Amino acid sequence: MSYKITDVANLLNCEIKGDKSLLVKGLSPFFQSKEDELTFAADEKFIHKIAEIKAKVIIVPDIELPENLGKTFLITKKNPRELMPLLLNFFKRPRKKFNKLIEASSKIGSNVEIAPNAYIGHDVEIGENTIIYPNVTICEGVKIGKNSIIYPNVTIREFCELGERNIIQSGAIIGGDGFGFVKVNGNNMKIEQIGRVVLEDDVEIGSNTTIDRGTIGDTIIKKYSKLDNLVQVGHNVILGENFLSASQTGIAGSTEVGENVTMGGQVGIGGHIKIGKNNMFAARSAVTGNVKEENKVLAGFPIVGLKEDMRIRASLKKLPEMIKKIKQIEKKLKK
Amino acid sequence: MSYKITDVANLLNCEIKGDKSLLVKGLSPFFQSKEDELTFAADEKFIHKIAEIKAKVIIVPDIELPENLGKTFLITKKNPRELMPLLLNFFKRPRKKFNKLIEASSKIGSNVEIAPNAYIGHDVEIGENTIIYPNVTICEGVKIGKNSIIYPNVTIREFCELGERNIIQSGAIIGGDGFGFVKVNGNNMKIEQIGRVVLEDDVEIGSNTTIDRGTIGDTIIKKYSKLDNLVQVGHNVILGENFLSASQTGIAGSTEVGENVTMGGQVGIGGHIKIGKNNMFAARSAVTGNVKEENKVLAGFPIVGLKEDMRIRASLKKLPEMIKKIKQIEKKLKK
Amino acid sequence: MSYKITDVANLLNCEIKGDKSLLVKGLSPFFQSKEDELTFAADEKFIHKIAEIKAKVIIVPDIELPENLGKTFLITKKNPRELMPLLLNFFKRPRKKFNKLIEASSKIGSNVEIAPNAYIGHDVEIGENTIIYPNVTICEGVKIGKNSIIYPNVTIREFCELGERNIIQSGAIIGGDGFGFVKVNGNNMKIEQIGRVVLEDDVEIGSNTTIDRGTIGDTIIKKYSKLDNLVQVGHNVILGENFLSASQTGIAGSTEVGENVTMGGQVGIGGHIKIGKNNMFAARSAVTGNVKEENKVLAGFPIVGLKEDMRIRASLKKLPEMIKKIKQIEKKLKK
Repeated sequence: MSYKITDVANLLNCEIKGDKSLLVKGLSPFFQSKEDELTFAADEKFIHKIAEIKAKVIIVPDIELPENLGKTFLITKKNPRELMPLLLNFFKRPRKKFNKLIEASSKIGSNVEIAPNAYIGHDVEIGENTIIYPNVTICEGVKIGKNSIIYPNVTIREFCELGERNIIQSGAIIGGDGFGFVKVNGNNMKIEQIGRVVLEDDVEIGSNTTIDRGTIGDTIIKKYSKLDNLVQVGHNVILGENFLSASQTGIAGSTEVGENVTMGGQVGIGGHIKIGKNNMFAARSAVTGNVKEENKVLAGFPIVGLKEDMRIRASLKKLPEMIKKIKQIEKKLKK
Repeated sequence: MSYKITDVANLLNCEIKGDKSLLVKGLSPFFQSKEDELTFAADEKFIHKIAEIKAKVIIVPDIELPENLGKTFLITKKNPRELMPLLLNFFKRPRKKFNKLIEASSKIGSNVEIAPNAYIGHDVEIGENTIIYPNVTICEGVKIGKNSIIYPNVTIREFCELGERNIIQSGAIIGGDGFGFVKVNGNNMKIEQIGRVVLEDDVEIGSNTTIDRGTIGDTIIKKYSKLDNLVQVGHNVILGENFLSASQTGIAGSTEVGENVTMGGQVGIGGHIKIGKNNMFAARSAVTGNVKEENKVLAGFPIVGLKEDMRIRASLKKLPEMIKKIKQIEKKLKK
Repeated sequence: MSYKITDVANLLNCEIKGDKSLLVKGLSPFFQSKEDELTFAADEKFIHKIAEIKAKVIIVPDIELPENLGKTFLITKKNPRELMPLLLNFFKRPRKKFNKLIEASSKIGSNVEIAPNAYIGHDVEIGENTIIYPNVTICEGVKIGKNSIIYPNVTIREFCELGERNIIQSGAIIGGDGFGFVKVNGNNMKIEQIGRVVLEDDVEIGSNTTIDRGTIGDTIIKKYSKLDNLVQVGHNVILGENFLSASQTGIAGSTEVGENVTMGGQVGIGGHIKIGKNNMFAARSAVTGNVKEENKVLAGFPIVGLKEDMRIRASLKKLPEMIKKIKQIEKKLKK
């Protein structure tokens, strides 16, 4: 699919500086953009890095722009971020109507077993030897690698991509909409979520775990990662190779986790942060900022070394008594 | 459906004081009761407010009763609360048998798209332009407004009501039974849950989120509210307009939340409490009592202002050292 | 099904000491093993208890072994635990191919109601009067007792066993694979999970709750237990009679909970621990070690009595001020 940039400029009420005849194939995040994709530079910080990216067409605010880069700019009087709802709506792929249980355009590899009552959408591709259990829903355009198992009642939403030897436990949701809203006249209004989920090879996703699709760009879980049940992975999260997480952990949107990271159960990881490789987080840890360290065993809220956390927790029991003691000491000193 | 109050009195072994010929259409909570519904006043506190409610028939304990209110009383020797299991069982609506994938009595609006394998129950009503994805189950008597999207593997249980432009992400459960049990001979026995879930217009519910039906009366989520994935909403909760919650938050039964409240991820809200409007709760907050304040940013467990919570958490790291210092000070003072 | 122990010995490269002609019917945990099952003694501690178990064939390390017990040993040069992946793969039951919506070998009791679109696997047995809602998946070999209700979109995985009067709320997953992995060449590789889930009579499981099957041996939930929504129960957990848990609680693998234990919401219970009977755990408690006490009301992380926890939490608010005071006191003392 291709879009005229003049149509985008009209939609957003932008002035075009550059080659008005260009077409783009989609919208993508700034640093991940490809040559034929549109992206946006929200502020000066991004504008200074325009030379580093591949996209040839960039939405920019009406400030001083770099020259001689061969880029075409769509200049807006608004903050480019405010155009997001309009842009996402414009680039949202149209959905084909449901037709029959196994849509005619789906491509099913040899020796694939599809159970009764599984829905296989338009243009879906399933690699050889993969097993699809009953009541699974695989939406339009999804690709699943060979030798995978998709257990009952799993949903894989539109255009997501799964690698080889993936195991998706029952009830897991791959590619649900990310949690994105803006206030319009004081009311919460949805922002379309047009990215995908990409699971690399040898990934296992636990029962009823939810992996949200990217807003633009993809949520990515790298190879050999294993997630337990009831885990939440927000939009545009990137989990490094060999990520392990016990159940009920939540990772908020746009966070990047290095390779070989392990998380206990009920851990909470904030959004838009980076976590170094080879770290382990004890159960119930809560991480609110970047973790630049590597090879550590961390715990608590705020996060500290596991041993320090154990000392702090042991101290907690003494806290009420200590407060009494301080008051006694103060009295003594007054005398 | 109508029920003779003499049948109810027989069931519960109550004496009737008033008009024995009355019929009621159902059971409802004290303050929300309608004229033709039955309710109960558990103790004196409620009995003093009987003039304020619409119900004409009220189950009451055998104590002094208000006169000249035109009410009919069913008088029990027991605590009216103890009659709940019997009452709920009596008023539970009978379920129609499953017949075929799209039951003949369902009313499907124009331009509705129903995917293969979706089950549409008896007497279901679906408004125009709504899309029902594969493997969705919509139980008997459910109403869904127009322009809504119900994603795969969603369950909407009996008699729940959804507004217009609702989006229900995959795997969400609307109207599962509330968590209600009593001990009978030392064993946990179920209490039927006969209320509903009501979602107003423009509500979005995240993947695998669970919204329990009311025990009696309804669980209500008001317009423009958006809930992320894996959120739990207990029976008879009322969430005000423009409620926002990040993932894995839990709100226990019968809690009422004012308008424009926002919750981060993994928040826990206790049952039977009231929360003022325009408040924000940071991720991992735990609320165990009423929050009368409004327009605040709150955090922690117990709940305090966000800045205070950050100070407390920063102090925690110093706690083990402080305990040592107190002991040193005590030694010095002894000398 | 029967397996020659000579085949097992070949697979694991073990020497056989004893009766080489023996057959076994399966693999089971040490203390729960039956006469015709194979088990393994991981170290000396288990070897000293071999007289106490029923299994006649035991995999053991190459150390001094008890004599005259009538047992047959498969002796390995490795740590028997390391053989687990191979063993589990060997004893994994083969799966029958999907054939049709209600497989011909299933046995459906009288007056059972099976809704459209429910899948009933090979050899499944369903007791009389049980109701199966739409889009339920009941996998091969499952048994469900009479008078049970299985709500929409539930998955019950292979060979699990449910008692009478069970209620499984929508979206719950019974018997998903436990979370078991080993590092092979630095990468996470799956360990097969060949045990089952056993739910006794009068058990209710909440919406989207996940109960993992045992690795070997069973995950067991005893009678009259009721679990709320979004609860996680790990592999090989045993929950005593009349267990109650509010929503979003997680119980890690191999933990045993005594009878009449109640847990609030968002509780976290670590793996491989034992919890005494009649205890109550307040919401958000976190338990990391054995709880030998009984009849207690506990709270916090680490776990303390509820009142003590409330005192500690109240003290937390004073912590920043106390730290200031300690510094002031130190200054005074220096003077």
